[in-house]
Amino acid sequence: MSSTLTLESMLAEIESADSQCREQAERRENSLTKPPGSLGRLEELAIRLCAMQRTLQPTATIPTIFTFAADHGVCEEGVNAYPQSVTRQMVANFLAGGAAINAISESVEASLTLVDVGVIGPPIHHPNLLSRQVAAGTRNFCQQPAMSEEQALSAIGIGMDCAEQAIGNGSTLLGIGEMGIGNTTVASAICAAMTNTDPDMVCGPGTGSDRSALQRKKDAVRRALALHTPHISRPLDLLSRLGGFEIAAMCGVCIAAARNRCPVLMDGFISTAAATIAVALKPKVRDYLIAAHQSPEPGHRVLLEHLSLDPILCLNMRLGEGTGAALAIPVVRAAIATFRSMATFESAGVAQECPQPST
Amino acid sequence: MSSTLTLESMLAEIESADSQCREQAERRENSLTKPPGSLGRLEELAIRLCAMQRTLQPTATIPTIFTFAADHGVCEEGVNAYPQSVTRQMVANFLAGGAAINAISESVEASLTLVDVGVIGPPIHHPNLLSRQVAAGTRNFCQQPAMSEEQALSAIGIGMDCAEQAIGNGSTLLGIGEMGIGNTTVASAICAAMTNTDPDMVCGPGTGSDRSALQRKKDAVRRALALHTPHISRPLDLLSRLGGFEIAAMCGVCIAAARNRCPVLMDGFISTAAATIAVALKPKVRDYLIAAHQSPEPGHRVLLEHLSLDPILCLNMRLGEGTGAALAIPVVRAAIATFRSMATFESAGVAQECPQPST
Repeated sequence: MSSTLTLESMLAEIESADSQCREQAERRENSLTKPPGSLGRLEELAIRLCAMQRTLQPTATIPTIFTFAADHGVCEEGVNAYPQSVTRQMVANFLAGGAAINAISESVEASLTLVDVGVIGPPIHHPNLLSRQVAAGTRNFCQQPAMSEEQALSAIGIGMDCAEQAIGNGSTLLGIGEMGIGNTTVASAICAAMTNTDPDMVCGPGTGSDRSALQRKKDAVRRALALHTPHISRPLDLLSRLGGFEIAAMCGVCIAAARNRCPVLMDGFISTAAATIAVALKPKVRDYLIAAHQSPEPGHRVLLEHLSLDPILCLNMRLGEGTGAALAIPVVRAAIATFRSMATFESAGVAQECPQPST
Repeated sequence: MSSTLTLESMLAEIESADSQCREQAERRENSLTKPPGSLGRLEELAIRLCAMQRTLQPTATIPTIFTFAADHGVCEEGVNAYPQSVTRQMVANFLAGGAAINAISESVEASLTLVDVGVIGPPIHHPNLLSRQVAAGTRNFCQQPAMSEEQALSAIGIGMDCAEQAIGNGSTLLGIGEMGIGNTTVASAICAAMTNTDPDMVCGPGTGSDRSALQRKKDAVRRALALHTPHISRPLDLLSRLGGFEIAAMCGVCIAAARNRCPVLMDGFISTAAATIAVALKPKVRDYLIAAHQSPEPGHRVLLEHLSLDPILCLNMRLGEGTGAALAIPVVRAAIATFRSMATFESAGVAQECPQPST
């Protein structure tokens, strides 16, 4: 299968971020006209970007948010606060410009690419939508694998193609987001399986499930793990059996971005689950991931700790769509702007040492 | 004195934020196509802006950062990591565009206004600087009041004038920042006096004082409090005896902004100390304050708790200059963009309720 080959060859081409650029960037940060470390996380971000992009002039050109939409068979289990039809309704809302991700991506001047990778119903045709339906929703993972391996590879390939194209068009910063009723349940199953954590510790209210729906969510995850864990030996097994099309596509974006030395802003819990699978496929992918924000979903913290990544923002957002990823873009831009344009102590003639105290 | 009259009349004209607009804004937030509360702090921000600006169409037009520079007599006590001459050197760096606030304000597309309110040395003349020197630095508050009351009122008046002019020119969002070697010591004294907290609990390393400088800082604050506390009965006494010109000017910005129903982004510890004095002068000023970020200085947290305000960003920044205030502007813009442009569940035809679970 060509998509297997493509995935394998992409993974083989991924290299670590560059430690020499990192050291040079650290030296430059410490020469700039500010007390060393006083820009906090901005300094860390600028240094990481230099190491990713192999440069002392990092960029965030044409930042692009990908929002992948898909449906989930596990909705049969009554795990959600909203009916499954909301996935499709929200895609229409994205296309009409009425959703949060439309407002935020426009506000931060980011490009937004919407991709249908598996929304229930006939394929949606719209000039602003990439129609790449793998199937009309996944199967219910409480009863069978959510996807076939072929479907998972196909969805990964869609994400890889999206990233390759954006990077080819000049984008040097990507962000991943999603829309899919039921997908916090899916991310919870991935998180529990990947980090070997009890479902009770990773399942949260998602977009607003009540107590009984939350209990059904935990039960569904527990049953899915019991059914599938014995058959999971590779990350691709985990993705196929427990994942979703949008999660596979976001995983593909992370892989292609890493291959191209391009940073990726993860949004919240679900996109971080996708990135975690990409890291399982190739640990060096982690070097290119930036945690945009901390969601209140308990599983998100578990995954960020698993990846050893600290979120940039902590605004109690739990919407998905890529909203947190988009909102972190101005912070990345500011990190780059300070790193690239600030004067050094030497060039500005600013004193770096203190005289002896006079008292 | 005309500036006393101006301050008194300004304070008299300040009104609370509007509770009716707040309620209407809350209703609109809950009608937008997202789970209620899922935009977290963005929702709270948008609602507060509506209440401040008395509108359901809040704006952040021509966001303007004021960076006030001044010197401090307490530097005689050896409290700093950098020589006092760095204040003036950094003003030159601001004017050459080489400082962090230049890079960040440009990056977030904010207007930057630099004001000399009391840098040691001859007045600085430059087309991009407002030269409003009250005096060439304050006096050492370990030995005498830092300022006369007339000087304090004069510096407040400068801040008020700056804010009035920016608002008159169409700015609907202001931010306050500062440059002044020694001013974390000053802010620590204000914080300790204002919140009745032990100096050991509010003094931190500032921009990077070592252990011995930190001990001298604590000692200086303790001696200043012993000298002045018996003579402090009004907020203006506290400001005159323990403050600085840039702190008084930032206090003036807060007062004029509140009078004009205009939100103000506080930067870090020092600007929050200034805003706290404005709130002491008129408690309703608090309604117009937004805490841009959390600095690691221990006194900053004490002041934010005193004001009951939660910071937007937490990026371990401790630079001042207005950098944190500037970096919060894109978050404010995003809050406004979502509030104003998102579709409602009704207008977008998105379902708001969940059917009964099928299992």
